[in-house]
Amino acid sequence: MSDVTRNVALVAGGAGFIGSHLCRALLERGHEVICLDNLQTARPSNLRGLEQLPGFHFVEADVVNPLPAGVTARAARISRVYNLACAASPPHYQADPEHTMLTNVIGTHHLLRLAEQTGARFLLTSTSEVYGDPEMHPQQEEYRGSVNCTGPRACYDEGKRAAEALTFDYARLGRAEVRVARIFNTYGPNMDPEDGRVVSNLICQALAGGDITIHGDGTQTRSFCYVSDMVDGLIRLMESDIDGLEPVNLGNPIELTVNELLERIRSIVATHGHVVHLPLPQDDPRRRRPDISRAAAMLGWAPTVQVDFGLARTAEWFAGEIGVDSPLRLSEAAE
Amino acid sequence: MSDVTRNVALVAGGAGFIGSHLCRALLERGHEVICLDNLQTARPSNLRGLEQLPGFHFVEADVVNPLPAGVTARAARISRVYNLACAASPPHYQADPEHTMLTNVIGTHHLLRLAEQTGARFLLTSTSEVYGDPEMHPQQEEYRGSVNCTGPRACYDEGKRAAEALTFDYARLGRAEVRVARIFNTYGPNMDPEDGRVVSNLICQALAGGDITIHGDGTQTRSFCYVSDMVDGLIRLMESDIDGLEPVNLGNPIELTVNELLERIRSIVATHGHVVHLPLPQDDPRRRRPDISRAAAMLGWAPTVQVDFGLARTAEWFAGEIGVDSPLRLSEAAE
Repeated sequence: MSDVTRNVALVAGGAGFIGSHLCRALLERGHEVICLDNLQTARPSNLRGLEQLPGFHFVEADVVNPLPAGVTARAARISRVYNLACAASPPHYQADPEHTMLTNVIGTHHLLRLAEQTGARFLLTSTSEVYGDPEMHPQQEEYRGSVNCTGPRACYDEGKRAAEALTFDYARLGRAEVRVARIFNTYGPNMDPEDGRVVSNLICQALAGGDITIHGDGTQTRSFCYVSDMVDGLIRLMESDIDGLEPVNLGNPIELTVNELLERIRSIVATHGHVVHLPLPQDDPRRRRPDISRAAAMLGWAPTVQVDFGLARTAEWFAGEIGVDSPLRLSEAAE
Repeated sequence: MSDVTRNVALVAGGAGFIGSHLCRALLERGHEVICLDNLQTARPSNLRGLEQLPGFHFVEADVVNPLPAGVTARAARISRVYNLACAASPPHYQADPEHTMLTNVIGTHHLLRLAEQTGARFLLTSTSEVYGDPEMHPQQEEYRGSVNCTGPRACYDEGKRAAEALTFDYARLGRAEVRVARIFNTYGPNMDPEDGRVVSNLICQALAGGDITIHGDGTQTRSFCYVSDMVDGLIRLMESDIDGLEPVNLGNPIELTVNELLERIRSIVATHGHVVHLPLPQDDPRRRRPDISRAAAMLGWAPTVQVDFGLARTAEWFAGEIGVDSPLRLSEAAE
């Protein structure tokens, strides 16, 4: 790729779970990729495999600080800015809530300024957390949400809502062309086994063969989107010709209770562990399911990966990652 | 006051409408006062009268930037930090929405850091706007609100929600002792005649004798608190021994439609102007009334100034400010 081609995608948070898959997909589509990450919650192993690929540049920096030379020196060739930078699991984002808020607000501010200066298109990965513990079900983009702005999840939820507000103001003022995705629960390889998400928790506990913990009675629901579907949705949204003044839900509308999820995992990973119930965390949403009719209409997008296939691929990856032998049922289910 | 007394109150936004009254009240109560203001929307005339008073220091600076020497040099003596810094009327805060967001988030971040470093108690003036266009009436503090985080008011509403989130995180982590007031509509002398609020608009139009504009059909309601009541509530909240982990509504629960407000003003200011109806702005709330039972229980606070008295005092002040003779009915009503 010649130096005059303006085909560089900046992926802030590119060493994270979704970010690392996005970097790879963008490289496959012919982009040069700058992966900007502070490695706060990203797993350095996510960069393995990427760093060997032509056109991939890793820059270690925190988006709360002014953008480093590794970005600004290439600014004239940046045509796409994806902002995925933020710790995304509650234990991680609550460890330093002030940094979580600043990452969302100041990070987005820095990246929007870059988009304005370069003319690059900007995509914010917002979150289903902007709906809080929703009273509307499934959640449409018009729903204003039920977020407790004084609680321990607010640093993330309100940080993302503030980042959306900033982003749409840039669009309204003609300062940047923007896209906003509201990402629902996503799973797959490259997740952090330690980050406290329900899919990784249950799979890793099943693989380890010990007790399995469920918060609450397990009747709360989630919708789980496999990461390749999510990355496809993000790129479609970025490349679409929509006017960008509305957020777009991306997620899998198939709703499972946590108990049902565990049954699916048990059909893949042989395990005899007992289920132990723990209290629900404060402000934990009871139900969460995206209405994706906007994404379907605007982007022609819908998830295609079946949950049993996705869980099997994820369990297989976790088995390798945490160094347990593939459990009995794994190979049958994954094929 | 000796230099070793730790009795300095920092009032960010102290040259603004409520801020200028708060500075005066704190001086009267024996505080030394640092008034920090960028004079973006404050009227310099609000500082007249204050600047002559002993113990008053004005520092011109923007809270989005690191705190200036005029503050840090006195940091060891600061015991109270009041954060009122932000443009508060829609035309002002929408003129530079990015600055509005950063003022709320970065400004609050800088002032919380100062409170942490000095051990000062911190009070955030949040807003009834965190309830958005509420579905619960009157609004209790537990209500999570109905805010459109993608709309043109979001820079303010979401900025304040984010500022609350930051503030409560400081409290949860034991980094600072905090108080959060949610201020409802407030009026009185020192308002900006040009800032587009309904009280100032209607009084000034009535005084000018021309047409009177009402947005929508005038059946939307507001609750109007006189500024001396508001300042009393803010100081009570700051000085109270509550645990500070909950926001407190401050406002007048007497609800008036905009049409009723106009009738009250017409009973004070003789005017023959016609009423012209204009469209409602986007996301304009239809109803707004505080439930102040928490403030009553915790602080023993309730507004005491009658609306006819408050409107008369305000009209009298505006008449002097915009240089019209006191209209016919003013002196009777104000006495």
